[in-house]
Amino acid sequence: MITVPSEKLRSIGEAIFKAKGLNKEKAEFLVDTLIEANLTGHDSHGVHYYLGYTASIEKGNIKPDAEPIVINDTPTTAHIDGQWAQGQIIARKVIETAVEKAKENMVSAVGAFNCNHIGRLGYYTDWASKQGVIAILFANVGNPLVSVYNGMSKSFGTNPISVSVPTGKTNPFLLDYATSVVAAGKLSVARAAHKKIPDHWASDREGNPTDDPWALSKGGWLNPFGEYKGYGLQLVVELLGAVLTGSQSGLDPNRIPILTNGVLAIALNPEAFVGLEKFTEETDSLLGKVKQVAPLPGKRVLIPGEPELESKEKRLREGIPLPEETWTKIQELAERLAVDLS
Amino acid sequence: MITVPSEKLRSIGEAIFKAKGLNKEKAEFLVDTLIEANLTGHDSHGVHYYLGYTASIEKGNIKPDAEPIVINDTPTTAHIDGQWAQGQIIARKVIETAVEKAKENMVSAVGAFNCNHIGRLGYYTDWASKQGVIAILFANVGNPLVSVYNGMSKSFGTNPISVSVPTGKTNPFLLDYATSVVAAGKLSVARAAHKKIPDHWASDREGNPTDDPWALSKGGWLNPFGEYKGYGLQLVVELLGAVLTGSQSGLDPNRIPILTNGVLAIALNPEAFVGLEKFTEETDSLLGKVKQVAPLPGKRVLIPGEPELESKEKRLREGIPLPEETWTKIQELAERLAVDLS
Repeated sequence: MITVPSEKLRSIGEAIFKAKGLNKEKAEFLVDTLIEANLTGHDSHGVHYYLGYTASIEKGNIKPDAEPIVINDTPTTAHIDGQWAQGQIIARKVIETAVEKAKENMVSAVGAFNCNHIGRLGYYTDWASKQGVIAILFANVGNPLVSVYNGMSKSFGTNPISVSVPTGKTNPFLLDYATSVVAAGKLSVARAAHKKIPDHWASDREGNPTDDPWALSKGGWLNPFGEYKGYGLQLVVELLGAVLTGSQSGLDPNRIPILTNGVLAIALNPEAFVGLEKFTEETDSLLGKVKQVAPLPGKRVLIPGEPELESKEKRLREGIPLPEETWTKIQELAERLAVDLS
Repeated sequence: MITVPSEKLRSIGEAIFKAKGLNKEKAEFLVDTLIEANLTGHDSHGVHYYLGYTASIEKGNIKPDAEPIVINDTPTTAHIDGQWAQGQIIARKVIETAVEKAKENMVSAVGAFNCNHIGRLGYYTDWASKQGVIAILFANVGNPLVSVYNGMSKSFGTNPISVSVPTGKTNPFLLDYATSVVAAGKLSVARAAHKKIPDHWASDREGNPTDDPWALSKGGWLNPFGEYKGYGLQLVVELLGAVLTGSQSGLDPNRIPILTNGVLAIALNPEAFVGLEKFTEETDSLLGKVKQVAPLPGKRVLIPGEPELESKEKRLREGIPLPEETWTKIQELAERLAVDLS
């Protein structure tokens, strides 16, 4: 591993995506979402996508100059055809529209289809809660890696969910996780480190627990988290993210082999209930009480979003750790695109 | 255990609650929710509450003639003061209002405080999805039994969540579960059967895994499901169910020692997206594909709501199993209230 300052990664990334046809403003936004993923410790959603997204643009799967369009608009909802634009640009339109409508009409729901990979969900919900609304985001992943509970084979994507609520003086409350025990990226990390994995993360092709980080390429699958409870949530994400919006499902036999997300955001304005001021005060108070709960010996009680903030502070100071191979490939890509690396 | 026909339990229950001051229509509705809980296999939420609710009415905690009132109304939201009416009557108003507003304005959010125990969440969401809307229901329980992840001591209630979506020809999709590994009722069942419990359900007072079904009364607590992921959902239910609506939190040092729920329903009209007809067709298709997934040896792949339907068919046919002590107490209660048992 080497460590690269985030601002260096930012300037290279912006140059790469401008070279690939995104305008300046979109390139800056996209790169900010990826850098933020690394800063918050979610390297699986970080700058290695400079490589993947560039390849997708070159294959024509991501259309850098496309604009998402609203095909069904009401005062409280919008149904968005993403037009296969850069996923992050579609997700931004989803969350901005949801926040705007919730500000005006108290609650909103906005969904998108024809949508490429949108990256880390928490980026969008965190922004929404800082605008004073509660945000819930569902994203089905149209590429199966995870079994259903008690099922053999890969059925659905990692189908993440994120919830963020506004706070006052305390740090943001930000839940953001895959409905599998772990995201596939954690197996890559284990492979790179030549380590085994805990045996509840994945199953082998016969359905047995396995500690093999290569399980997915050997016919195995990721397990849903929390037995039938996480599985139920996995299905909810598929139904709301994919079926409701018209996006492709992991079980669609005609699915296209590119990384897609079906996205649904729900935004909720506290002014319809106790009011924003009281809500943030009481949320601060409640989260403060949670932090005062005595921890198990050797453990910490953490608020969702807290590990991400701790990582961000550290990495802003120390830089972002990257596998040398990733950094080399990013530099080679930049050279190929004749991007200024200084 | 003895077995009692559901219609016998129904008529006794209606007579009991009419004798305690609920009008005929409310008594019938309340009893239907409790019978349905037993029929669907959720005995922890069933007719044993004839005893508990009667005691709460006699103590004045449940006000049988109170009516919930809307204190903040918008085209898409309602904030309801439950006035300490029977919880089920409040929850019915919450879900009916949410469905009506989602039918008219595509999406809605309705919350309630000053609310007694509402029983099994799936009763309400199942009804909503049969009206053609997607329903999400959060209910914080203001009486702590469950720890936070990595925390010592009881912090929050079992904080259930339910999601139901409309289907066409297939059975309903109905997710409904506590955010603890199991509801407290499962420990009662183990105690009654003189059995140990699986050691991931609860912790003893030192925070060690325990197989003791009496753990909760010995200073232990229930564990949240799915490690930090279920814990995150537990907090979301507390923030949306309690903090947003102004209901009491499990960590409120001044909480009143009665069984309260803080309730938030979100309803979503598929007409804002792919449309109800396409949504139900595609949901049928997806759930059909899930049922075709090859199961692990000796296991079944189940759709959320399917075990409940199977139980209901069986119990409508064979009757509802009850501990003899419960049935005796219900009969004694009916006699005390001079209710006709014929």
